[in-house]
Amino acid sequence: MEPLKVGLIGLGTVASGVAAVLTKNSREITRRITRTPIIEKVFVRSLERDNPYNLDLTTSIADITDNPDIDVVIELIGGIEPALTYIKTALNNGKSVITANKELIALHGNELLQLAQEKGVFLRFEASVAGGLPILKLLREGLAANEIDTVMGIINGTSNYILTEMSHKGVNFDQCLKEAQAHGYAEADPTFDIKGIDAAHKLTILAATAFGTPLNFEDMHIEGIDTITAEDIAITQAEGYTIKHLGIARKSKQGIELRVHPTLLAKEHQLAQVDGVLNGVYVVGNAVGEQFYSGRGAGSEATASAVIADLIEIIHNNDCRHSAPALGFLEENLQSIPTLPTKSFSSRYYLAFNYLNEITGESIAEALKTVLLEAGVTAEKIKVYDQYQQVILFLEKTVQENVENIINNAMLIKGIEDSKFIRVE
Amino acid sequence: MEPLKVGLIGLGTVASGVAAVLTKNSREITRRITRTPIIEKVFVRSLERDNPYNLDLTTSIADITDNPDIDVVIELIGGIEPALTYIKTALNNGKSVITANKELIALHGNELLQLAQEKGVFLRFEASVAGGLPILKLLREGLAANEIDTVMGIINGTSNYILTEMSHKGVNFDQCLKEAQAHGYAEADPTFDIKGIDAAHKLTILAATAFGTPLNFEDMHIEGIDTITAEDIAITQAEGYTIKHLGIARKSKQGIELRVHPTLLAKEHQLAQVDGVLNGVYVVGNAVGEQFYSGRGAGSEATASAVIADLIEIIHNNDCRHSAPALGFLEENLQSIPTLPTKSFSSRYYLAFNYLNEITGESIAEALKTVLLEAGVTAEKIKVYDQYQQVILFLEKTVQENVENIINNAMLIKGIEDSKFIRVE
Repeated sequence: MEPLKVGLIGLGTVASGVAAVLTKNSREITRRITRTPIIEKVFVRSLERDNPYNLDLTTSIADITDNPDIDVVIELIGGIEPALTYIKTALNNGKSVITANKELIALHGNELLQLAQEKGVFLRFEASVAGGLPILKLLREGLAANEIDTVMGIINGTSNYILTEMSHKGVNFDQCLKEAQAHGYAEADPTFDIKGIDAAHKLTILAATAFGTPLNFEDMHIEGIDTITAEDIAITQAEGYTIKHLGIARKSKQGIELRVHPTLLAKEHQLAQVDGVLNGVYVVGNAVGEQFYSGRGAGSEATASAVIADLIEIIHNNDCRHSAPALGFLEENLQSIPTLPTKSFSSRYYLAFNYLNEITGESIAEALKTVLLEAGVTAEKIKVYDQYQQVILFLEKTVQENVENIINNAMLIKGIEDSKFIRVE
Repeated sequence: MEPLKVGLIGLGTVASGVAAVLTKNSREITRRITRTPIIEKVFVRSLERDNPYNLDLTTSIADITDNPDIDVVIELIGGIEPALTYIKTALNNGKSVITANKELIALHGNELLQLAQEKGVFLRFEASVAGGLPILKLLREGLAANEIDTVMGIINGTSNYILTEMSHKGVNFDQCLKEAQAHGYAEADPTFDIKGIDAAHKLTILAATAFGTPLNFEDMHIEGIDTITAEDIAITQAEGYTIKHLGIARKSKQGIELRVHPTLLAKEHQLAQVDGVLNGVYVVGNAVGEQFYSGRGAGSEATASAVIADLIEIIHNNDCRHSAPALGFLEENLQSIPTLPTKSFSSRYYLAFNYLNEITGESIAEALKTVLLEAGVTAEKIKVYDQYQQVILFLEKTVQENVENIINNAMLIKGIEDSKFIRVE
């Protein structure tokens, strides 16, 4: 049968991985499918560059998006523009599109999915979440019989690497960030990773796929890891916990919680053991119960694995009308669900209060007990960490509004300088 | 659009789960697909039975397999006959078939897959391995870009439940088996589970899907958990290990190892933490690296989740020629790979030698060192467990032939009564 001609947009880390994996696994991949994928052309900004796979490079995007010879376009440049324009042009020209661009899908996925449907072509983005872990296929197809109520995961490798290093070495955030940058695990501008924005993009895609809603980035509650100190880690480790940056999407009768933030996990929790640049995702479905998946969340060939899996699926299925829809639910059956406000987030909570040198921790702890009594919230534990001048609390399950009230009242206690809270799963 | 009419063969635990999940999740499932699945008829041995979902029961198999109204047949009675005949009849009559029957697929899958292909219909069996964990879809589609070299997993919940109970409570095998039977976690005749045969059926399916080979049960090396004693568990726990019953399929340039046996895992290993009736599978692909998945390996609704996922896929894809092949590779491209003999299995090994009361463990250990020296194999550790009258060894990575020679020579040492070895991963 005739080959399937692919146009690549970009030739960075992931795109090079696509070329590498298609080359090294060509024999195994060809055994699976009736059409062999061939990289027909690659759009790059400059022709003056390494080209180890001897690909046909072009600096004209029309050679990809308007090229009648090309069947499938793979966008791997990231960011909103010009990627958005390129993808729209390709879809409008009747080409199926594969992308690893989580930001673009989280923010513009709804219009792109609609356009793809109008044009009767595929839009696939497995590589946009959790690298090589086929989490979208799992939610969309593998668990399709379930009503899913929870997706919770470590979905940003940079944050997880930094938190893991902070935990293992006891060093502070700034130092770990610098090391991560030196090792290539964090970008020169690490804002998207350490502020939780990248994880929020991915959680947007996970939530829509799990619950069958339109993509909804706007309502996401986002916190990063840049507020976590070496002291937070030392104290919570002593209490038997690991701090992980989690994305959590949870559905209840009231609506959905969409949130990305540092979280305390008991050391025995499966997600607590997902270290370094690994990703891990925990899913609860009402037929299968709890499932857990982990694997490399980034990297050239791991991410390429997801891109090529999408390509193989497009070759197999051939017609997007005879394929699972991109979010697992028919476009016309996607249903918005109200997003719950931050103050209603319900979980256990860890609170830490810094006090002045001249005050005793015991007196602070006593005063905090009175505040809790007034709030009607029970602490599972109150403990003084003299060496850090901190009193810490673990609150039983409650809503965040109560926690904020407790902190507001606690800040009136003489001698308390500072406070923070971290949610506990 | 017209509904998709399903005929169920059997109305046991899993079939009841299929009816339950299709009922309770009908709204969510209907949002995914263009045709609504309806259970048209159910084949049972006797009409005198509970029928909580008010299904249309029949005692005539022709009402299912020869019924022109039925589009998809779901076989859930297990065993070889009459399931084999029923499925062949259904396929011959142009019906797609879904089954959870691992024994049947492991032993007769090759001919059934060929028949399904000839007839142009689907044959799907996600529920045959690891219950609700979509491990076949993962291997077949999610990781399709990879050359996979290792699949290793806990794929028999009964064995894992018994080993977990033995580890936690320190009791012996017979007592745990009786408790498992009392709790419904082991069958009245537990042979298939405790002798490793059920795991071997599942590994046969996993290996064919991972490597793109025909199903090959005949060459499987099979050991069960019935040789594991409370003492084995106590000693290896003291050494930092957990005993798990694993299925291992591993490909190298020489061929494939297909083996099912008790295995020592360091306590920190992800699979060591898969407890009770859970299943866990670890996969290594040459693009994604290591991935790990866990979830419920059995149970009515968890297994039904996999059956219905297959059904939803059939509805989406509509035509089996425009779908991933059942084993992930085109039928005509399946390739046999030589299976390596047991004596060439390469791993670290744990050896335990029981000695007579009147002999000292130290003298046995000294004699064993001489045996090792002659064999040219290095022990990472030799240790005397006086209280159990055992000397234990951990051997560095070697082939099983060497281990068997060492044991043969060790058995000539005066005072050694008995020996065993367990592979270490």
